[in-house]
Amino acid sequence: MLEKVDLKKKISKIEYKGMVDGIRERLGELQRQARDLGIPVLIVFEGWDSAGKGTLINELILSLDPRGFNVYSIGEPNQEEAMRPYFWRFWNKTPQSGRLVILDRSWYTQIVAGRVSKSASAQETEKKFYDSIAFERQLADAGTLIIKFFLHISEKEQRKRLKTLEQDPAAAWRVTEVDWEQHRQYNKYLPVVEEMLQQTDAKSAPWTIVEAHDRRYATLKIIATVVQAIEKQLALVEAAGCPDVAVVGNSLSGLASAKIFTSSILAGADLTKTVKDAEYEKVMKLYQTRIRELEHIIYQKRVPVVIAFEGWDAAGKGGAIRRLTEHMDPRGYTVIPTSAPTDEEKAHHYLWRFWRNVPKAGHIAIFDRSWYGRVLVERVEGFCLESDWRRAYKEINEMEAQWVNFGTVLVKCWLHIDKEEQKRRFEERMANPGKQWKITGEDWRNREQWELYEAAVDEMFFRTSTSYAPWTLVEANSKEFARVKVIQSVIEAIEEKI
Amino acid sequence: MLEKVDLKKKISKIEYKGMVDGIRERLGELQRQARDLGIPVLIVFEGWDSAGKGTLINELILSLDPRGFNVYSIGEPNQEEAMRPYFWRFWNKTPQSGRLVILDRSWYTQIVAGRVSKSASAQETEKKFYDSIAFERQLADAGTLIIKFFLHISEKEQRKRLKTLEQDPAAAWRVTEVDWEQHRQYNKYLPVVEEMLQQTDAKSAPWTIVEAHDRRYATLKIIATVVQAIEKQLALVEAAGCPDVAVVGNSLSGLASAKIFTSSILAGADLTKTVKDAEYEKVMKLYQTRIRELEHIIYQKRVPVVIAFEGWDAAGKGGAIRRLTEHMDPRGYTVIPTSAPTDEEKAHHYLWRFWRNVPKAGHIAIFDRSWYGRVLVERVEGFCLESDWRRAYKEINEMEAQWVNFGTVLVKCWLHIDKEEQKRRFEERMANPGKQWKITGEDWRNREQWELYEAAVDEMFFRTSTSYAPWTLVEANSKEFARVKVIQSVIEAIEEKI
Repeated sequence: MLEKVDLKKKISKIEYKGMVDGIRERLGELQRQARDLGIPVLIVFEGWDSAGKGTLINELILSLDPRGFNVYSIGEPNQEEAMRPYFWRFWNKTPQSGRLVILDRSWYTQIVAGRVSKSASAQETEKKFYDSIAFERQLADAGTLIIKFFLHISEKEQRKRLKTLEQDPAAAWRVTEVDWEQHRQYNKYLPVVEEMLQQTDAKSAPWTIVEAHDRRYATLKIIATVVQAIEKQLALVEAAGCPDVAVVGNSLSGLASAKIFTSSILAGADLTKTVKDAEYEKVMKLYQTRIRELEHIIYQKRVPVVIAFEGWDAAGKGGAIRRLTEHMDPRGYTVIPTSAPTDEEKAHHYLWRFWRNVPKAGHIAIFDRSWYGRVLVERVEGFCLESDWRRAYKEINEMEAQWVNFGTVLVKCWLHIDKEEQKRRFEERMANPGKQWKITGEDWRNREQWELYEAAVDEMFFRTSTSYAPWTLVEANSKEFARVKVIQSVIEAIEEKI
Repeated sequence: MLEKVDLKKKISKIEYKGMVDGIRERLGELQRQARDLGIPVLIVFEGWDSAGKGTLINELILSLDPRGFNVYSIGEPNQEEAMRPYFWRFWNKTPQSGRLVILDRSWYTQIVAGRVSKSASAQETEKKFYDSIAFERQLADAGTLIIKFFLHISEKEQRKRLKTLEQDPAAAWRVTEVDWEQHRQYNKYLPVVEEMLQQTDAKSAPWTIVEAHDRRYATLKIIATVVQAIEKQLALVEAAGCPDVAVVGNSLSGLASAKIFTSSILAGADLTKTVKDAEYEKVMKLYQTRIRELEHIIYQKRVPVVIAFEGWDAAGKGGAIRRLTEHMDPRGYTVIPTSAPTDEEKAHHYLWRFWRNVPKAGHIAIFDRSWYGRVLVERVEGFCLESDWRRAYKEINEMEAQWVNFGTVLVKCWLHIDKEEQKRRFEERMANPGKQWKITGEDWRNREQWELYEAAVDEMFFRTSTSYAPWTLVEANSKEFARVKVIQSVIEAIEEKI
């Protein structure tokens, strides 16, 4: 998913000047309050080479009282360190009560590098990720606030930065063959980095992805994130009862949670994609034949297939499912529409009805809306508690992992249209007596919550687009393009398996 | 640890009659209350063949309203089931709100059998255990009460039961070659069963080991455990706010937590063990020479060694450490006494000071008292919150796993004496001017908490005696026997590694 993050975000000089002083001052205040309450804070910087870790750490510490923090740069373990269990040197650097520790790289760097160079197996890597989670959870459970940044730049941006450095006589020495070698491996690192972000994004120590093309934007996002995290921790400590110390000052939380600082995948989608009519007819015919062949192959090979459709109202889920199944053998697939749960379903765990409908090996189950309702409609409409939908990301990942480990092919499509296109389609439906039934007051009402849904969809992508069950973002302003991409994605996923 | 559980527990007919009616009635009441509050309850029976699962399930359901529960017997998956992911059939059997489901065997049976027959690798097995935890946690998080029993009998008892059945003409058909085959594999099952109990003993779904030699004892322990668990869940639901429903009736929790129903390893220790003087001298000399050799070997091979000593006051830790190190090269080992934490240590995570003292590869660290203080003295004396020491079992297991994965040899000795022996030693110390300093008012005070410590030690054994870092219970009423066993355990652990 990382390569789809919208990296175009920036902040103008004027905007920056208007914000930076206030937020720096606030951070200074918070550092003092955290010190007085004895809260240890651990801030981790990870990210691509040349993403600007050093510069941004400097920007962050500008606001801090230097007596209250330490910065450690983490390289290869030295001889003393190599002779002890991996986390020994990190335990030694954990902040004591009331202090901040900032790490330039961390336990993650070596884990990721080991996997990319294949010196560690997938299993060893998973174990190390587990150890990382355990380490962070242990600290967090005892009151340490942990903030983890991943500074993200594109491959192209990285190349540009390396070249610029090389051309600067004063900085050229900083660019070594190792840097170029790593740059060439950008696409080898990508899936491992994504796995790291996915697997170690724990509640007690979440990752914040920082779009680092624009230095001003990155600076503000980092400071605002730290401000918000400390405010939250102070509030927690206060709630737990330290009546003597009042947390004063104006909250800037609003800033940190402002939309501009939210990483977005939807925002990066190119909705102008389309396909020509003649091309569409040709490709569709080809694909529909192929999917029928594949349906028979998976039946013989006893491969189960699950296809989940999610998307905006009127994004064209129904049409896409129709085109997908048009020439398939109906004995091989089932379409399962998901609507409000029945009484029996309500009396069970929310995943129960989806488990019940797991296809037999050799069969295909197509879900028209799915278990993702928990983190979409139920979240936005308040049909469940916040703790319920927050927990659901992990529960869903665990369920999907079990299916995939069993050998299931799992395809998840999000059909994406923009707000204008939705309006156009709604109006078209209203105007067409044969389609009026498709549109209700609820659809118009949901539309008013567009921004809330957008945030929910982006968070869903970040938390449930796993290496074993990635999301496919289907650009659906053109219905034809969407239908082709859906059927193509299904074909590719099945072909990869068989 | 399972083989050390005290299996001699029994309850007389008269005692049984005095208790069983009251507790059955209480269970009936609780079933109705759980139904009214919509609480789903899932009860799992696992255990050795011939341990009496069927009989004991019958004893349990005698107290229940048959309209409110289902019993399912779990065998090999049928064809429909085999064609779906493993947990599909168990999801289908999850209880709906207000109902009880009782499972005769569960997801664990096949996982354990797969490991014993080597058809599943250690890694696959670990994954399945993880899936089990996830399944149970998902249900528990949504309000299902999960109770898991492991019915434990010894190998000898199992043989006796099989023979008795064979000799009964009416029951002989029930004993098949498969039963005998499994009986012969008792010792192959043992470590896998222990691993299962260890790895899947989660807070949301803990295991209860039922000593199943005596049917009356097992019946009462099972019913009492269910009663206590439902009472606890009702209290939780009430606290979360269901003001309309009052949980009425007299609590019998006292019964379930009664000492007789607590599984004990300490109680099974044979403290009469001793060693003859001549033998002691000879063996000790031999072992001390060997340990010095091993010290050099591990230095050359760069193997780190951690030895942790815990035990009752006056159990002889100091003497055992002295005999262990008497002929060792002092450059190769350090003895680290653990006392009350310093201010700096208090400002960090409680594990920090132990991580700091992790030995370098090739060196030996001997801890005189250790990180287990958290679940012993800190628990009993209330130096930390209950949530802190409860969390510590997992934290300690994670830390030890990291050390062992790094290649560390880890030996953990509990020096065990009985209360009378301690008194004798205390008095001896008081009488001896050269030893008076060793004994303080605190020692006498701790002694008054003997039962609380005993419970803490037994729980520590159950929760932290892992396959990778087992406890050694050292019978120490005879100092000589204890010293020999300690040094022997260290030698064996190192030899196994090199």
